[in-house]
Amino acid sequence: MGDYMEKISRNQRIVAITKILLDNPNKVLNLNKFTEAFAVAKSTISEDILLVRDIFVKLGTGKVETISGASGGVRFIFDISAEEKTKFSLKLSDILRSKDRIIPGDFIYMTDIMYNPEIINKAGLILASAFNNQKIDYVVTVETKGVPLAYEVAKKLGKQLVIVRRDNRVTEGTTVSINYVTGSNRRIQTMSLSRKAIFNGSSCIFIDDFMKAGGTANGIKNLLKEYDSNLVGIGVLVDDRESSKKLVGEYVSIIQYKGIDENGSAIIEPSF
Amino acid sequence: MGDYMEKISRNQRIVAITKILLDNPNKVLNLNKFTEAFAVAKSTISEDILLVRDIFVKLGTGKVETISGASGGVRFIFDISAEEKTKFSLKLSDILRSKDRIIPGDFIYMTDIMYNPEIINKAGLILASAFNNQKIDYVVTVETKGVPLAYEVAKKLGKQLVIVRRDNRVTEGTTVSINYVTGSNRRIQTMSLSRKAIFNGSSCIFIDDFMKAGGTANGIKNLLKEYDSNLVGIGVLVDDRESSKKLVGEYVSIIQYKGIDENGSAIIEPSF
Repeated sequence: MGDYMEKISRNQRIVAITKILLDNPNKVLNLNKFTEAFAVAKSTISEDILLVRDIFVKLGTGKVETISGASGGVRFIFDISAEEKTKFSLKLSDILRSKDRIIPGDFIYMTDIMYNPEIINKAGLILASAFNNQKIDYVVTVETKGVPLAYEVAKKLGKQLVIVRRDNRVTEGTTVSINYVTGSNRRIQTMSLSRKAIFNGSSCIFIDDFMKAGGTANGIKNLLKEYDSNLVGIGVLVDDRESSKKLVGEYVSIIQYKGIDENGSAIIEPSF
Repeated sequence: MGDYMEKISRNQRIVAITKILLDNPNKVLNLNKFTEAFAVAKSTISEDILLVRDIFVKLGTGKVETISGASGGVRFIFDISAEEKTKFSLKLSDILRSKDRIIPGDFIYMTDIMYNPEIINKAGLILASAFNNQKIDYVVTVETKGVPLAYEVAKKLGKQLVIVRRDNRVTEGTTVSINYVTGSNRRIQTMSLSRKAIFNGSSCIFIDDFMKAGGTANGIKNLLKEYDSNLVGIGVLVDDRESSKKLVGEYVSIIQYKGIDENGSAIIEPSF
């Protein structure tokens, strides 16, 4: 975290500590690093952190945990209030209901949403907070539309992102490829992943933009078996309720898509 | 930014203001919103912001600008110190020099780097800071490896991300496709983008993981012409100096790749 040389005031330390915590989610930060960086006593830093912790709780930003022992310190875990979750999913539902989003084939155009950092930041926060009590090693997605969302979830959980590809690139070294059947229209698809991408015996969550029958999620589950690894959670932005029979068990979604109404607007509702 | 109901202390306001500024880069935030949220006078908020501004300057986090007038307020712009940039690029060079990164065909395996949120956060900050004085509308990339980096740059500049695809998806609606020739091995490739993705007359920057001869960047330039839009900047993580003759003009990179030495390690150096 660098050395700030001259002594700075409590207000200034608090700004710096806020930034450091937000930049390092799910990481144990040793208090010694703070005392060195700010040239103040441990007790002073502890008081600073308490102040930040309390306002983080008040704002619903997340919790700051204290880990005791030699390798101890503080750890920040992102969270979001139920109120903010509801507000976001209602607003997003409104945006997606717009008639001019319906494109030929009765698809909803949502590429701009999936690539909008302000929206994806919040959506990523909601999905990350659903898994912040679980032990996970990787956040897995499949190219392309869900990549920013999965990246944001990985960042907020402090974990490595893994992107499964539809093709097979020479720059990936040895790859593992599997064929799988999509659940909705029963097409055969291929997905491949570098042998180096995942350590054997890992716990992974899968994040994607849209879930129909869950064929892709099921494919990921099978691909992870090749790494002796487990899929321990699934999170998507949109759950397509028109495909109500899913190939996978539990999953988290932010909004639900229920088809197109007689006026030609998408029927979209928050998931919670 | 919500309503925090009960009056909170200066320390607590400062934590909240720090978070709000970091979450809303390049956006003009009206002071009235702060005074309403915290139930304090404008002069008090102005003092709070001055405090945050000063420590942001001290930490090299970025600058907080004051915009006067009725639609005025404050705007936070991310930056990074020269010292931190150098430290990061030296560290990244060290990581990439590792022998076990060389894969068949003399490629360097860097997928794990491109999907590591901690590294990409910092790399994105460096590239965003190179363009934070320019008027831009979109941050454009091409799938897949550069997507997290381009997303991070877009987020830090407060702009929309645009991902150009190699294939042509039905969920994109009407698309514009162009063929282009890669500069390094002169293969013909296709790239396509939804008609809805970019407004005509926009200014865009292109962000990617690796630049060889610049064929892809050149392709993007031509694709943008179909939207009467301009490519006003290029930023990459790795500049391949083995392809020293580039098809494009000015660009920004973080590290340079200069081939593989007699010991079988990649020759990698910081770009600045």
